[in-house]
Amino acid sequence: MRPIRLALFGGGPGAFIGAVHRRAASLDQRFALVAGAFSRDRDRSRSQGQAWGVAEDRIHTDADALFAAEALRPDGIEAVAIATPNASHFPIAAAALRAGLHVMSDKPMTTTLADARALAGIAAAAPGVYGLSFTYAGYPMIREARARVAAGEIGAVRKIAVDYPQGWLAWPVEADNRQAAWRTDPAQSGIGGCIADIGVHAFHLAEHVSGLRVTELCADLACVVPGRQLDDDCNLLLRFGAVPGVLSASQIATGERNGLRLRVHGADGTIAWDHDRCGELRILRADGAMTTLYAGTGNLGDAARAASRIPAGHPEGFIEAFANLYGDFAEAIGGATAHALPGIADGLRSMAFIETAVASDQARRWLPLEQP
Amino acid sequence: MRPIRLALFGGGPGAFIGAVHRRAASLDQRFALVAGAFSRDRDRSRSQGQAWGVAEDRIHTDADALFAAEALRPDGIEAVAIATPNASHFPIAAAALRAGLHVMSDKPMTTTLADARALAGIAAAAPGVYGLSFTYAGYPMIREARARVAAGEIGAVRKIAVDYPQGWLAWPVEADNRQAAWRTDPAQSGIGGCIADIGVHAFHLAEHVSGLRVTELCADLACVVPGRQLDDDCNLLLRFGAVPGVLSASQIATGERNGLRLRVHGADGTIAWDHDRCGELRILRADGAMTTLYAGTGNLGDAARAASRIPAGHPEGFIEAFANLYGDFAEAIGGATAHALPGIADGLRSMAFIETAVASDQARRWLPLEQP
Amino acid sequence: MRPIRLALFGGGPGAFIGAVHRRAASLDQRFALVAGAFSRDRDRSRSQGQAWGVAEDRIHTDADALFAAEALRPDGIEAVAIATPNASHFPIAAAALRAGLHVMSDKPMTTTLADARALAGIAAAAPGVYGLSFTYAGYPMIREARARVAAGEIGAVRKIAVDYPQGWLAWPVEADNRQAAWRTDPAQSGIGGCIADIGVHAFHLAEHVSGLRVTELCADLACVVPGRQLDDDCNLLLRFGAVPGVLSASQIATGERNGLRLRVHGADGTIAWDHDRCGELRILRADGAMTTLYAGTGNLGDAARAASRIPAGHPEGFIEAFANLYGDFAEAIGGATAHALPGIADGLRSMAFIETAVASDQARRWLPLEQP
Amino acid sequence: MRPIRLALFGGGPGAFIGAVHRRAASLDQRFALVAGAFSRDRDRSRSQGQAWGVAEDRIHTDADALFAAEALRPDGIEAVAIATPNASHFPIAAAALRAGLHVMSDKPMTTTLADARALAGIAAAAPGVYGLSFTYAGYPMIREARARVAAGEIGAVRKIAVDYPQGWLAWPVEADNRQAAWRTDPAQSGIGGCIADIGVHAFHLAEHVSGLRVTELCADLACVVPGRQLDDDCNLLLRFGAVPGVLSASQIATGERNGLRLRVHGADGTIAWDHDRCGELRILRADGAMTTLYAGTGNLGDAARAASRIPAGHPEGFIEAFANLYGDFAEAIGGATAHALPGIADGLRSMAFIETAVASDQARRWLPLEQP
Repeated sequence: MRPIRLALFGGGPGAFIGAVHRRAASLDQRFALVAGAFSRDRDRSRSQGQAWGVAEDRIHTDADALFAAEALRPDGIEAVAIATPNASHFPIAAAALRAGLHVMSDKPMTTTLADARALAGIAAAAPGVYGLSFTYAGYPMIREARARVAAGEIGAVRKIAVDYPQGWLAWPVEADNRQAAWRTDPAQSGIGGCIADIGVHAFHLAEHVSGLRVTELCADLACVVPGRQLDDDCNLLLRFGAVPGVLSASQIATGERNGLRLRVHGADGTIAWDHDRCGELRILRADGAMTTLYAGTGNLGDAARAASRIPAGHPEGFIEAFANLYGDFAEAIGGATAHALPGIADGLRSMAFIETAVASDQARRWLPLEQP
Repeated sequence: MRPIRLALFGGGPGAFIGAVHRRAASLDQRFALVAGAFSRDRDRSRSQGQAWGVAEDRIHTDADALFAAEALRPDGIEAVAIATPNASHFPIAAAALRAGLHVMSDKPMTTTLADARALAGIAAAAPGVYGLSFTYAGYPMIREARARVAAGEIGAVRKIAVDYPQGWLAWPVEADNRQAAWRTDPAQSGIGGCIADIGVHAFHLAEHVSGLRVTELCADLACVVPGRQLDDDCNLLLRFGAVPGVLSASQIATGERNGLRLRVHGADGTIAWDHDRCGELRILRADGAMTTLYAGTGNLGDAARAASRIPAGHPEGFIEAFANLYGDFAEAIGGATAHALPGIADGLRSMAFIETAVASDQARRWLPLEQP
Repeated sequence: MRPIRLALFGGGPGAFIGAVHRRAASLDQRFALVAGAFSRDRDRSRSQGQAWGVAEDRIHTDADALFAAEALRPDGIEAVAIATPNASHFPIAAAALRAGLHVMSDKPMTTTLADARALAGIAAAAPGVYGLSFTYAGYPMIREARARVAAGEIGAVRKIAVDYPQGWLAWPVEADNRQAAWRTDPAQSGIGGCIADIGVHAFHLAEHVSGLRVTELCADLACVVPGRQLDDDCNLLLRFGAVPGVLSASQIATGERNGLRLRVHGADGTIAWDHDRCGELRILRADGAMTTLYAGTGNLGDAARAASRIPAGHPEGFIEAFANLYGDFAEAIGGATAHALPGIADGLRSMAFIETAVASDQARRWLPLEQP
Repeated sequence: MRPIRLALFGGGPGAFIGAVHRRAASLDQRFALVAGAFSRDRDRSRSQGQAWGVAEDRIHTDADALFAAEALRPDGIEAVAIATPNASHFPIAAAALRAGLHVMSDKPMTTTLADARALAGIAAAAPGVYGLSFTYAGYPMIREARARVAAGEIGAVRKIAVDYPQGWLAWPVEADNRQAAWRTDPAQSGIGGCIADIGVHAFHLAEHVSGLRVTELCADLACVVPGRQLDDDCNLLLRFGAVPGVLSASQIATGERNGLRLRVHGADGTIAWDHDRCGELRILRADGAMTTLYAGTGNLGDAARAASRIPAGHPEGFIEAFANLYGDFAEAIGGATAHALPGIADGLRSMAFIETAVASDQARRWLPLEQP
């Protein structure tokens, strides 16, 4: 199979997620990076593009110029990856979809639910595939968890707990840290801080694995580090219909790295997954025993098995999980419908979640989470 | 030192916590069990008492008879341990205090805040020591955690998360299980189920280690197993002044045993403790490293060192933690003031917590937690 | 049931294992400590005895006097616990057995195989029960492991690995530390240092759980800390017939506490147990999954279930494991034959192991381990 | 920087390590795969080459033809990656070096020490860089461990223990499993089975991290699964001068995946690393505390920091470790001398280790490990 021609937005020197997109897209040779706007600064964009082997005339600093130039080429791009700060996710995705291209966007989909709805409308009218990088959905053991919950292995789900502690914003690092600067700036990030950056990952994971949908929530968002305009810590009570849940995310949990942790409690068992042991899935049994399953072993279902590249005991991680989403993206571009790629529906729900959480926090009360 | 003469209420065949009191009281030979009312059933009480070496004429079935009989003896009891279902904690403790005895009560203090206030009044007028078995306060590494937070090792506390999952009530076991039967019966337990049985432990631990006090809460209590009258799952948003917190406890978390888990996040570090690794304390550092401290090692403070009996690497557990509370109780009886024994103040706050949580759940909104 | 009257040898101030015997014997009220020679120093023995509630006239400083005095009493001792340095294990046990008493001896049985054979002869002619405190045999999950291996759950055993790292002798602490002083002194300890103190525990555990017997070994013993006369580190190749094994024990593994770790690999699965998670047993399955079993849960066999006192999730540890051996001791005294108490046969094998290991090290070659 | 043009030998459908080389070489875009002999079967080689985007005329089935064809091209290969069964490592590497190419060979270097010496001679006379994929040397935390030991953080090394259990050959899978077939066939693998396949990794890691060199060993190799001609389990006593060590490796440890585990005990601390938590390094301190360091954090040294691509808490694994070796390879090709790439010296020692282990096992005694 010929690799799909891809342009990348973002990923300039010092960026985090752009380079992840680059590696993930090429790990299984399903995509070839042929163009990009890696920075709004010409020199930075050019130096990054050259380092990645992109031809000089296909390196740009803004989306419009890139789309215009590529449209003229016989070997122009077929897909775009968006890894810019949040505020530009919407306009780039909208332009790409309108240009007939496929889109893999970093989350969040947009910075407002209104924009998300607008983008959903554009996507519905466009031929391209739209994928959203809820990375955790790419992990083999999350695929196994989802499949097992769906197959009834833990019985009816009765409680969901999800916890996502980080500590890297425990100090006012915004001045010196490009990653921190845009994430704590409402103009670039939108109305949510921690809730939009990582809380939404926790929310997505809870719904994705359990198959349930949040119907009500009560949020408590805090700006712990003085001077910050956006929340850096958030705690939420959830209801998935009658099923209770709790979600906690923080960027001021000093010393924590990226410890996303999910528990789905069912009538017949509990599913437990921790990001820092990403290749394991634990199932607590009603009889008191625990079964641990490992990535790469033969007792996993098809979805999980297809998501490992190397034998059990040889750890794969974040880049590989991301690459699994790019694998889904390639499958979807090829016409497959049975894939696990998060897309428009996930984006709409996640934007509704963020806005409802912010509103609940401000109102200090429970609010329904409307189906968008 | 002569052991203190103790009577035990509760602890009949099939009971859990009564036998723990018995073993904990005698582990370090500070107390001698000389009397008791181990069951309301004469035969059960007698057979239990005999098995524990209690003289036949000091085995009773109710508190009044026991107090009356012991008062006549020159070698009568000096202290009582109360390990009965919740509803009798108050009357037995009140009678004991009025009789000039020392009291070690299992939690909760009473079944209502009003009773707790009444008991506080009685205690204030009585010569005896009143201790309350918030067991987790007896663990060496909890003592170390508390000391380190107080000493400023993690800086100002910024977030507290506490999680207490159990799974043993994931099914309607009430019919067959004595422990489950009284805990799910409002007449014996009071207005709270899970919140009063284990949620309150989580609450106490959070305050005990952090040194902060909950000022507001928003609770979501659920009766997950059909037919139950009391909550079997509870999730709460907390505020300790400006400091956010989250508390989750469950008795329907299938397959979970007793996984109490505390995280106290400070500006300079995070303290982490898990009951299933009770001899360890983890401190996450601002520089990204984690320090693990172990019970029995020389780098612990006085309080933790005094709470271990055997060298590092030789695990001690629940009975030993409980025995540490009995050690505090003995110290307090001996006149010491510098001990870690939870008492009247802890009991009042915990009852206020339970009642406020139930009220918040019913009102579906945040409520202040008044200082009782 | 009336408690069995027990005398304790050793356990003076600063001792480790004597106090463990004291607590373990009384935890389940099967034994009452009524006499003892807690130290060879009169004041130390007396102060310890008083602290433990032993009557003044039953506190001694040597065994002969104690035996003589107790023999005259109508309520004299029925059993003795020996927790002195190694060199006196043999004479005290021999005298006690000859006096018709039951004996619970700390390991090792003696300091030479010849003495062990002599003691075996004495025991064979005596009415008393002889128990040897291979403590790890008292852990519930070791009982479960042994039962499952015996029942064929992991198939034919194919490899055994056992590792026992400690770090407390990583420095020349002998001058200041009573525990270290006798253990590093050949006159008190015998011909083995680390091999006799903890290597023998690892050896016993490997045989006890696997049911196999070591037939050949090749040992490498080292004196790592300069000036030491006895080994402080030992590594051994083992053969259990055709089945290979490896044993490593150390007292100079800096920072290690007491991390005994056993792996028994069978054709159908692997059994894994770690002392620092003593309430867990892991079974690695041929299909790549791992099952973790927990102490106190209902899916364990009779032996393990009988060895827990409190519900799952409430940790029990070393004292409780030791108390389980005392429970076996009480059962054996009562005439039971189906118990797990290590005794004469275990002692003989362990002494043969120590002597063969020392000889193999000196010869720098494989030696057969004779059945003693 | 322009990517270096690379040919790959091996990596056909069903292979394990060939695809790892392919991904590792391209992950950081330092190499471009432009040619290869992916299988000796024409159709298999071609289909694999096409899937990886290699031009049809650069896909071969044997090394000679490939070298000849590439030598004629102006854009011919500059480097080769060898991922074939062991027996062809030597001839391909020799031919490549003689052709002036750079070589990254999978381990082992050759199948005999004599061949290794011959290859060393060839390499000494050739302009190309020779790298050997002792993968574990590519992990960030192994780089950190090595740097800290070298800097004296744990003091003088006193004991080394390394354990490498796998379970995938616990049954006679050779008939159906290509990976198993060649590894258990002396004609393709050489004189060692488990010892040459994974024992040698454990050996290399022990020397690489400790900086010490094995001077003597006593090996016990076993063929556990009936009918096997090569060892599938091996246990060794080691001496690094006066420093004792123990090495255990197995491919019949049922249910184990790939749990390489290293402990280096020094006078001032212990370094511990486990492959299944590859992003962590634990340092046990003399005071009884343990420090855990994490990949991607700022408290690591330069070597470890340069070996992470994404922030702490975002797991990287085996492919990334392998890519770090390719990064070293690229640096060495570019003329750098300060890199961590294992090469000729590592290969010679590892072959001497394998042959000495086999000889020691046959002789049933200790043998010196000569410096090759």
